[in-house]
Amino acid sequence: MNKINLIKIGGNLIDNSEQLDSFLEAFVTLKGPKILVHGGGKTATSMATKMNLAVQMHQGRRITDGPNLEIITMVYGGLINKKLVAQLQALGADAIGLSGADGNTILATKRPPAPIDYGFVGDVKTVNATGLTQLIALNKIPVLCSITHNGKGQLLNTNADTIAAQVAIALAKQQEVHLHYCFEKEGVLENVHDEASVLPKIDTQKYEALKAAKQIAGGMLPKLSNCFEALQNGVKTVHVGGPNMLNQSTLHTQIEL
Amino acid sequence: MNKINLIKIGGNLIDNSEQLDSFLEAFVTLKGPKILVHGGGKTATSMATKMNLAVQMHQGRRITDGPNLEIITMVYGGLINKKLVAQLQALGADAIGLSGADGNTILATKRPPAPIDYGFVGDVKTVNATGLTQLIALNKIPVLCSITHNGKGQLLNTNADTIAAQVAIALAKQQEVHLHYCFEKEGVLENVHDEASVLPKIDTQKYEALKAAKQIAGGMLPKLSNCFEALQNGVKTVHVGGPNMLNQSTLHTQIEL
Repeated sequence: MNKINLIKIGGNLIDNSEQLDSFLEAFVTLKGPKILVHGGGKTATSMATKMNLAVQMHQGRRITDGPNLEIITMVYGGLINKKLVAQLQALGADAIGLSGADGNTILATKRPPAPIDYGFVGDVKTVNATGLTQLIALNKIPVLCSITHNGKGQLLNTNADTIAAQVAIALAKQQEVHLHYCFEKEGVLENVHDEASVLPKIDTQKYEALKAAKQIAGGMLPKLSNCFEALQNGVKTVHVGGPNMLNQSTLHTQIEL
Repeated sequence: MNKINLIKIGGNLIDNSEQLDSFLEAFVTLKGPKILVHGGGKTATSMATKMNLAVQMHQGRRITDGPNLEIITMVYGGLINKKLVAQLQALGADAIGLSGADGNTILATKRPPAPIDYGFVGDVKTVNATGLTQLIALNKIPVLCSITHNGKGQLLNTNADTIAAQVAIALAKQQEVHLHYCFEKEGVLENVHDEASVLPKIDTQKYEALKAAKQIAGGMLPKLSNCFEALQNGVKTVHVGGPNMLNQSTLHTQIEL
């Protein structure tokens, strides 16, 4: 069975050019087929501010009205995606940037407007694993931004962690998929106030205990939910770690069922 | 020999949603392999204005400083490219958006800063015809925005007419290429003040006569120069026409050697 690595990088890592350079260097040395998934929420917010556009959030999630969807399309699909692709090309990696619309890679459904109207936000419906596999067979490295489409001409904003998990699940039907969530912390912290309290391993039991004790909150909750969903649906391994996590010797959190 | 159509659309057409819809419908009915190339100068300028960014021009050509390169990357590579791809997907065409960095499709050299420093502007060095042909063999329709890269991580702004001509020339080594420049007028006008004075045909002799009489000026000069360069380098046919030019019955200008 072919093996593939899928790495998702977060906005804070993208904003730090030194960390990003170092990450990309480790990424290109990863052997075999690979995919990069990125968001970029912070840059989108600062771009909206530059354009005097209000950014509304609900429980940490962006409400994507028309003008904010334009910003997201510009920042995720244009600015960040093309810069990452150009940097990877400079490192000798044949990257190809994709939104969910490109090659019909990710089809989504607009989230219903009740109880909360999140605007132009899409929930992943189908991932075109065949299309991605064909590109990979041409030795391309897909670089996916967190934009999907509904197949009717509408682009949609979709959470990048979810995209990473859903793409991993779709590929896992044919391949051995290793999923890595790479963000600004060194892993999942037992104590959010102590950066050194990285948990080396979280299994389902530990996850439930952490949730019950309210030791996991905010953005980490949906991230871990994506991790477990991936494992429950055939993804071989899931790791959560910092900018240097692709260097196997560094501390990080392994998620297990 | 395989036949391929390469169509370049201008900024005014992109800004007019009714004309664009009608163009895209004609585009998807074109039989056989095809490529779409787009610019989007007007949208980039209005986006720069929204962000209080000065846009400097020299003889009708944009000077691309760092902040303007960011805008171009966002608008061409993100906003316009992804919207076009989503619209084409909705029409059943398997479009895939590409900058010159994606798949190393177009490598360029930064233009020397003397006599005029145009900033981050690239002159096309090599077109990856093999890469484009591989995507087309997967039944993809490449949608190229007018951004290139230098292979060292730097994105560059490149004239979309030139990109269309250079891609056409590169493909012409292996295929029969038909190049179409589609813009807001119905063709090359004999009298710029008379929209009905479309010249049905321009050959080299006529071109020289028009230039000598100063009947051709502004943006039409480099456009025609690209047309003749394409024909001189193996491109089979070149047409210049309006939003409905893909409908063969409409008026347009055929360029001939």
